[in-house]
This record gives sequence, C-alpha cells and structure tokens, in this order.
Amino acid sequence: MELFELAGTDDRRFSPYCWRSRFALAHKGLKPRITAIRYTDKAAIAFSGQDKVPVVADGERVVSDSWAIACYLEERYPHAPSLFGGEGGRQLAHFFNLWCDTQINARLVRAVALDLHDRLQPEDRSYFRRTREQRFGMRLEDAQAERPRLLEEIHQALSPVRALLAEQAWLHGETPAYADYILLGTFQWIRAISALDPLADDRPLRNWRERGLARLGVA
Amino acid sequence: MELFELAGTDDRRFSPYCWRSRFALAHKGLKPRITAIRYTDKAAIAFSGQDKVPVVADGERVVSDSWAIACYLEERYPHAPSLFGGEGGRQLAHFFNLWCDTQINARLVRAVALDLHDRLQPEDRSYFRRTREQRFGMRLEDAQAERPRLLEEIHQALSPVRALLAEQAWLHGETPAYADYILLGTFQWIRAISALDPLADDRPLRNWRERGLARLGVA
Repeated sequence: MELFELAGTDDRRFSPYCWRSRFALAHKGLKPRITAIRYTDKAAIAFSGQDKVPVVADGERVVSDSWAIACYLEERYPHAPSLFGGEGGRQLAHFFNLWCDTQINARLVRAVALDLHDRLQPEDRSYFRRTREQRFGMRLEDAQAERPRLLEEIHQALSPVRALLAEQAWLHGETPAYADYILLGTFQWIRAISALDPLADDRPLRNWRERGLARLGVA
Repeated sequence: MELFELAGTDDRRFSPYCWRSRFALAHKGLKPRITAIRYTDKAAIAFSGQDKVPVVADGERVVSDSWAIACYLEERYPHAPSLFGGEGGRQLAHFFNLWCDTQINARLVRAVALDLHDRLQPEDRSYFRRTREQRFGMRLEDAQAERPRLLEEIHQALSPVRALLAEQAWLHGETPAYADYILLGTFQWIRAISALDPLADDRPLRNWRERGLARLGVA
C-alpha cells in the first residue's frame, strides 16, 4: 500500500487532507509506504486519473480524496478498528468533514496564506500564489493580514467542539475515531507550516490536540 | 407517556428543543399525550426536579433535556427505528446538537427576539424580556435589528448542511434520523413564531425542510 501526500521545504507535510488519510491508515493498523510529492509535481499521481493528493494505492485499487479514502478503508478493512462506529457515524462524520472544511480550514488557510507560500519549494510558489489569490479574491499578504478576525471566527466556530470535549475525552466518545482525525489533521497541518497556534488561548482543545497527536505518534 | 412543551398565544409551540423531542417520539412510533405549559408556569413540571421543557414522563421514568430524551428513547426502545444508527452516530449527533445550538439557534433567537416576545402570553412577556436582555446584553429591539448580519452568518454556518444535501436526501443518508430532527426543530420553531423565513433564499435547504416537515405531518 502506498500513500501519496504533499510536501514543501524541509519535507514539511502540509495538507490537512493528507494528515486525515495518514491518521485513518494508522487507526486501521495499516503501514503504507509514503511518497511525498510537490504542488507542481502532478505527473507522479497522474495514474490516479486526477491531480490532487492524498491518493492511496492499495494493490490494484487507487482511491483519491480523503473522504473517499476513509470510506474505502472502512469497507475494505471491516475487522480493523472502526473509523465511524456504524452507518450513522459514517453519515455524520461526512457532515463533520464538510463542517471542518468550510468553517475551520477555509478560514485557517487564509490566516496562514503567506506562511504557507514561504514554506513551499521555490518552484511551487508562483503556482500557489496565482491559484490562491484567485480563490481568495485578494493578495496572500492581505488574506493573512485578516488573521485576528479569522481567528476570532474560528474560535466561535469551534464552540460545539469545546462543549463536547467538556463532557468526554474524544469527539467520538471514549476513544478517538475519524471525526477526531479530521480536526487533528487541521492542527497538525498548521503546526507543520506556521508559528501560529490557533489554540494558544484554548486550553481544552489544546489538551485534546496534544493527547491526539501523541497517540498518533506525531507530537 | 406524556410530553410537556412550551406554548405561547394561539397555542403556538415555540421551543426548538420541544420540537426535537416531538420528532424523536414520532420517529420511534410513540404517541405521547402532549401538555402545553407557559414560560411562567414552572409548577406544572416541578415533578421533574428542574424548570425547563421538554420533559418526558414515561411511566415512572421522568427525563428532561432534549438530548437526554433522545438518548433515553434510543436505549429504552431499541427495536423501534434508530435515532442515531449506532454508537458512532450517537456521538456525532451530540456534536451536531451542540453545533446547531451554538451556530444556528443562538443567532436565530436574536433575529426573532421581538417576534418571540410579542407572541408570548402577556403575563410571560416581562420574564422573557428580562432574562433574554440579560443574556443578549442588549434590548430585544436591538437584537432583532441585527437580523441582516445574523442571517448572513447563519447562511454561512449552514454551508456544510447545504454541501451534504447536495449529495443525499437527508443528513442521515437515505432516511432522516435525529440530526435531521435537530435542525428541522429549529425551522419549525421559527415558523411557529415569526414571519421570517431564514431559508427564503436557500432552495436546497428549503426543499429538505418541506420534505421533512411533511413527513412528520406538521407541514
């Protein structure tokens, strides 16, 4: 089995979606070979029929998109620990996935836009700047300058997570599962590419993050 | 079995939490006697040891708080259709519950603060005004005046729901379950107490809401 993921300078791994797949594989007890590719190195994953990481190659089977990978792993390895805890859990993990993408990641990627750029391989930077400035509708510098407002919005958006972790150790209850990995992937990605700690003033979530990353062996 | 819920003038039912319990009971095929109480009529539920609705009395068992009621029904009536679809679904429905309360209801209740007040029984109004103005840190009139901004924030917060419903008929997949009822409860509550339609410009969610309320027999 092989996992293709994104890397920058110093082999920094910076895609929250690749971390999700790494953590999902670890939860299933799978140890894939990991291949790092760069933004502009799309030829390396052309065999997947699309141009985005993560990609998992499992024998003859090729799966891209972190959500599709999680669903594939759950179906293909049903006897390994469950990522979802049943069909209802899979449905609502899908909601959680979309929640994290639209409410947390979409804001964080702006708050660290320039940090991300600066930690890319030099040859990847103009591609990143062009595509992101088009998506954000502004310069990377201006996006990152909105950091204080973005962090405030993120703190507010995280309030249901904070409320849940006041009652239990993990989002999934007594042990972590895929919803935990979705959000842990976000914070692990930020750690890899910025000095910013979005949880600096958020002890309960910081505590959950540290426990989670330690358990996954990446702290 | 008996369900105690909140009512205003013209017998309008206006608690999103009471709707959640009503829909959960219907999902389980249970037909409780329904007793309406008013804000200031706490004596009627004193037997529950607390002062908030919904309260369910099931024989000797008394349960308050809509989330606790859903968990109770799932455990007590395991052979009726499931509200959660397994333990993972229960855990993430808890997240969804907190998400809806903090991201949607907390904003909507301000956007309709004055409408709510005006549809209360006259004797309940000063209690409502005093407690809500304290909670909001402003007059009801000023809270409701922020409606345009609040609706914009709600529209943004609903984006993961919109994305999920672009892929499937219900939040829980092919059939509705408790996460659907949590959010349907919110919109049914608004319908009962305000001319505002927070989904006026949101066809996908409006479509899901109409299908959901029709299925529950309250459209």
